[in-house]
Amino acid sequence: MDDRFRIHDQLMERAKRVVPGGVYGHAVLAPPRHPRFFSEGRGCRVKDVDGNEYIDLMCSFGPNLLGMQHEAVERAAAGQRRLGNCFAGPTERWVELAEALTERIAHADWAMFQKNGTDATTLCMTIARAATGRRKILLAEGAYHGAIPWCTPSAGGVLPEDRAHLLYYRFNDLDSARAAAREAGSDLAGIMVSPFRHDAFVDQEMPSPEFARGLRGICDEHDAVLMMDEVRAGLRLARGSSWEHLGVEPDLGAWGKSLGNGYPISAVVGRESLRDAAASIYSTGSFWYSAVPMAAALECLRVVDELDLPTRLEQNGARLRAGIHGLASSHGFSLRQTGPSQMPQILFEDDADFRKGSFFAEDALARGVYFHPFHNMFLSAAHTEEVIDECLERLGPAFSALRREVGGD
Amino acid sequence: MDDRFRIHDQLMERAKRVVPGGVYGHAVLAPPRHPRFFSEGRGCRVKDVDGNEYIDLMCSFGPNLLGMQHEAVERAAAGQRRLGNCFAGPTERWVELAEALTERIAHADWAMFQKNGTDATTLCMTIARAATGRRKILLAEGAYHGAIPWCTPSAGGVLPEDRAHLLYYRFNDLDSARAAAREAGSDLAGIMVSPFRHDAFVDQEMPSPEFARGLRGICDEHDAVLMMDEVRAGLRLARGSSWEHLGVEPDLGAWGKSLGNGYPISAVVGRESLRDAAASIYSTGSFWYSAVPMAAALECLRVVDELDLPTRLEQNGARLRAGIHGLASSHGFSLRQTGPSQMPQILFEDDADFRKGSFFAEDALARGVYFHPFHNMFLSAAHTEEVIDECLERLGPAFSALRREVGGD
Repeated sequence: MDDRFRIHDQLMERAKRVVPGGVYGHAVLAPPRHPRFFSEGRGCRVKDVDGNEYIDLMCSFGPNLLGMQHEAVERAAAGQRRLGNCFAGPTERWVELAEALTERIAHADWAMFQKNGTDATTLCMTIARAATGRRKILLAEGAYHGAIPWCTPSAGGVLPEDRAHLLYYRFNDLDSARAAAREAGSDLAGIMVSPFRHDAFVDQEMPSPEFARGLRGICDEHDAVLMMDEVRAGLRLARGSSWEHLGVEPDLGAWGKSLGNGYPISAVVGRESLRDAAASIYSTGSFWYSAVPMAAALECLRVVDELDLPTRLEQNGARLRAGIHGLASSHGFSLRQTGPSQMPQILFEDDADFRKGSFFAEDALARGVYFHPFHNMFLSAAHTEEVIDECLERLGPAFSALRREVGGD
Repeated sequence: MDDRFRIHDQLMERAKRVVPGGVYGHAVLAPPRHPRFFSEGRGCRVKDVDGNEYIDLMCSFGPNLLGMQHEAVERAAAGQRRLGNCFAGPTERWVELAEALTERIAHADWAMFQKNGTDATTLCMTIARAATGRRKILLAEGAYHGAIPWCTPSAGGVLPEDRAHLLYYRFNDLDSARAAAREAGSDLAGIMVSPFRHDAFVDQEMPSPEFARGLRGICDEHDAVLMMDEVRAGLRLARGSSWEHLGVEPDLGAWGKSLGNGYPISAVVGRESLRDAAASIYSTGSFWYSAVPMAAALECLRVVDELDLPTRLEQNGARLRAGIHGLASSHGFSLRQTGPSQMPQILFEDDADFRKGSFFAEDALARGVYFHPFHNMFLSAAHTEEVIDECLERLGPAFSALRREVGGD
């Protein structure tokens, strides 16, 4: 029994009695001796239920973009909360937030709000089909777009019909996308793509400009809808849509996670040409008009701009990467650091079973740094240069421990 | 131009530029001259953006079970918020809330948490299919279970495959359910049903005991899963599952709306026999571990019990009904008041086009009572006897105005 997790393990026993598996969803992705239950958080630091404190390099898998309990966001949320949150319709915040998104995202002429990222990706597909009157949607093999039957990674309870009319291409392989589009033929409704390949377990891949422009070209040629799933990457890579630096804009964008800095909100934004199709769909949820997450999102967007956050995250991410590269090299390890530095993926060479990665993540945890061995990390505004340096100080001994574990020193 | 809605109409113009249709979802159900945009709320009183104040008989279409800004719930939420909300995993609130639900709902041996009601109903279907290895699900014709392609009332972007393996019966018509089960044959995964028929536009229907027991019998006979969609009715009809007074318990229950008194949370609860199937499904969302809505839900459940809320709502609903009946009679109108008094549906006789109902709802609005002409109302703990009496005082003149409008007096 690991004394550091005494309360945690008791709580997990209680949980297992009343929740299938104790926990489910992305919390199960962590290594066995990682905490599932947390108790407190502020900025980029979290405590588990035993009071162990960590620098959090996962940012709750994305939502904590500015850090937990960000003062300005909390103030905006509290101001709205005093007026009211969940009405029979929206408030002025609804209009303000739609205006803010259409102002900042080049292709966005309108916006719609939901709760889950899955709500947004599902609505994109539905709009694409309604607008085109066609059925086929192209997805990248292995890409994660949510967790209901059409997209969940698990097979339980999923019927072949849930995935009828989905065709697959390989990220960064334009020929495979062209082949899938040919297969769809005149029935091609659209293509969904993430800003970069951020699948768990594997190296991340930034899109080649040819691939990005090629997908845009296929959609233009077929009068089909290019859908960008910004749920995981949005607001960390760019102020607007994540391919703006490539000069490629999608027709629909699905946003979520970081939009409200932890307050529950997701969004679909789209082009004028898709407005009528979007308006034709009955899509709603009990809490979709809630004003507090919208007030939080408005303030979150303001702070993102004030800090020029994507640039700042990129710089601090590069600092983390360079530091980790140096530590790994000096301990004789080769790493594959892939994807944007704002959302680092760090995998060990010769580690197909993630034994090195898992040992390293568990050892780093004991030294107060929380991350996953095979899911990308996320940086926030609270991960300052000083915090990055503190991480690196803690990770040095973790590399030494790994060296001792795998031998060869 | 209606001066009462001057700011509202300006805001709607702004909204139409940046949101398809200006608003979407259940806010579009209101009559044309009803406010879509709200600004403040407390207890059972809301203000629209022009400052017009209403007694709210819609409770945000359900969530406001105890009234908006309920002091004890807000205190519990604030206490959790100071610790943190959105972590990479759950907090102890997760376990406590699962324990609270399994304690109070007879058939519940475990619980899982989501955000939308649609998340919960979709997960129920997926669990039923995973558990049985079968495909067919029986639904009541016209019943609302959410707003993604398998269940949304609109046709846009929906493919036949999204509704493959759904079969339909008529609420309270056991023969029709038996016929659908026969059609499903050995492929019957389960039956989904609402606690009562609460479809918009039509009279509500309480379940006959024979119907409720009959559905249970069909599921037992076929080893299929009985799923109760408690999203709209849950916690207003009973402390536990809504058919407990009939001695009928489902195998899975989908809960939402009122569970957190406006804080976003939904839940699936189920029997031991379905635990492994539930654990086998990858189902998650960015905000599903959030602790603040769980703290709110825990306090909400405590207050429901303290107030014996279902009984209280039933009594105050009966007072509203009797008063409305008296007013209608004295003005020469016949009404059909159907369903449970906690969630009244009030339709005029000889009003197929809802002209009377819409006039009445719009006139009542001008007198400070907010409800819909063809969607059931919802009562909350904040609708005290005094508030009901205040409603009735305001509705008397609305009946007089309707009398003048339709003539015959």
